[in-house]
Amino acid sequence: MGPVVSTCFRVRYGETDQMGFVFNAHYLTWFEMGRTEYCRALSRPYTLWEKEGLFLPVVEASIRYKNPLRYDDRVRLKTSVREVTPYSITFAYKVIREEDSRVAAEGSTKHAFCDRSGKLAREPEPFYGWVLKQLEQTMEEVVPRERKTDIARE
Amino acid sequence: MGPVVSTCFRVRYGETDQMGFVFNAHYLTWFEMGRTEYCRALSRPYTLWEKEGLFLPVVEASIRYKNPLRYDDRVRLKTSVREVTPYSITFAYKVIREEDSRVAAEGSTKHAFCDRSGKLAREPEPFYGWVLKQLEQTMEEVVPRERKTDIARE
Amino acid sequence: MGPVVSTCFRVRYGETDQMGFVFNAHYLTWFEMGRTEYCRALSRPYTLWEKEGLFLPVVEASIRYKNPLRYDDRVRLKTSVREVTPYSITFAYKVIREEDSRVAAEGSTKHAFCDRSGKLAREPEPFYGWVLKQLEQTMEEVVPRERKTDIARE
Amino acid sequence: MGPVVSTCFRVRYGETDQMGFVFNAHYLTWFEMGRTEYCRALSRPYTLWEKEGLFLPVVEASIRYKNPLRYDDRVRLKTSVREVTPYSITFAYKVIREEDSRVAAEGSTKHAFCDRSGKLAREPEPFYGWVLKQLEQTMEEVVPRERKTDIARE
Repeated sequence: MGPVVSTCFRVRYGETDQMGFVFNAHYLTWFEMGRTEYCRALSRPYTLWEKEGLFLPVVEASIRYKNPLRYDDRVRLKTSVREVTPYSITFAYKVIREEDSRVAAEGSTKHAFCDRSGKLAREPEPFYGWVLKQLEQTMEEVVPRERKTDIARE
Repeated sequence: MGPVVSTCFRVRYGETDQMGFVFNAHYLTWFEMGRTEYCRALSRPYTLWEKEGLFLPVVEASIRYKNPLRYDDRVRLKTSVREVTPYSITFAYKVIREEDSRVAAEGSTKHAFCDRSGKLAREPEPFYGWVLKQLEQTMEEVVPRERKTDIARE
Repeated sequence: MGPVVSTCFRVRYGETDQMGFVFNAHYLTWFEMGRTEYCRALSRPYTLWEKEGLFLPVVEASIRYKNPLRYDDRVRLKTSVREVTPYSITFAYKVIREEDSRVAAEGSTKHAFCDRSGKLAREPEPFYGWVLKQLEQTMEEVVPRERKTDIARE
Repeated sequence: MGPVVSTCFRVRYGETDQMGFVFNAHYLTWFEMGRTEYCRALSRPYTLWEKEGLFLPVVEASIRYKNPLRYDDRVRLKTSVREVTPYSITFAYKVIREEDSRVAAEGSTKHAFCDRSGKLAREPEPFYGWVLKQLEQTMEEVVPRERKTDIARE
């Protein structure tokens, strides 16, 4: 399963709906944040892959919603790689409410390896070797500060 | 002008559009984050106000877009209070790209003071006194860590 | 499986991302539109259910993305009911690009029957009887005009 | 002021927030739909402009929110051109709740004329001449059916 990258953020007001909970579609937006932070935390930002001509369109997504989340809830999103095939990578996600460590949702997204023209790419390097290597490694914990709030008087 | 609260975050992939830049509507979503963090940083989370029966629906919004933002750009959103009247509060926002300190956008949102039923409320306490007091104060800088990414092996 | 309700709309600019295609999360937003139009087309708007105290939070969602969609593509969303159990209903969706009848995506969402307090409800009437009756019926085609564009000089 | 193009649609569930009304940012997304339908109704789809190398990034936006909208409300969005300069075009919007013809919001967006590289373009043809001609004309009303819902048994 390799490393698990945690990203923490808060639910935005606009992510709630009239039921008072986070609208179901936003979890997929969060999953993208999870993939982005996974690649960055392991030192290869996703922007690099696109610049090198590798695109990872989603071909499958699934989510099980277990407990609702509310505005301003602190969320911990745990992202890992579940499977790599010559033509695809599958990420797994766990969405946790920080306050009580309750699992809010679990899900996965499967991505095809594609080149700039949208054609399927087999074992695209250097991504393919990089990701396989990640899965073999035990990573130490790193805690880069990714968001901060500060107050100043201007 | 009182305190200025900075919140830092990264542009999400889903916030870009086919032009390659952040779609214009998302700035308003970010402004809401700015208001939320402003209240929290000054120790009164916005969730409290709603629980106490004060709602702040947006009655006006304006944005000037100056420089486009791209996926994964680090953004610093500076939020302050521009004006308080007996029936409204106006927040001002500056969106800055961290990489080069370039201003991406500036804007403001004006909010009516409303009670739970949606009726206009004059100088609603304790919010009204609280916010006026903030505007008089010089705040020290506080840097709570609001987002973090970490890696673990599970 | 009972009636299939088609809803047609166009891809919004803000629904695309920098890859030039519709961002994956928006399909879930569309699925909600499909459910809404399904209930309305069969003469019981979803707003009525909520007023009567029945809520249908999503507990599972899955999507297979087959062909990308672009800005301004005309989309036909076909919604039907796949399964009803005493505690849940599962909707199935097919997203079709009108221009060439190509399937863009397929998916499903499973919803729990819940009361206003969020508690699971068994065979909630009148919804439960209504939906079972729909599944038995062959519906005639109805074509209410749901969107129109017109030009006037003011 | 030239032609006024009306587009009708319904509020999506995911466009509401926990206050029970449409979240403020979505109006800007709707304004984009209004521009799109304006160009199409006047027989030059916006997709054409981008293909011909003209881009219209938003440089200013403003909205006055007058009455809240709820889930499933039918909305009529009236779009017109307020001003054209050699370097920009300003669209004006009126958002109306169909049920009672109440104005929900009014707003405008100003767009720069840019080429593919993002550089400002002066009086870009054929767009510039086309839009000026529109403003002189009195248009007859046309009512293309833009959305429909139908039921079938498969």
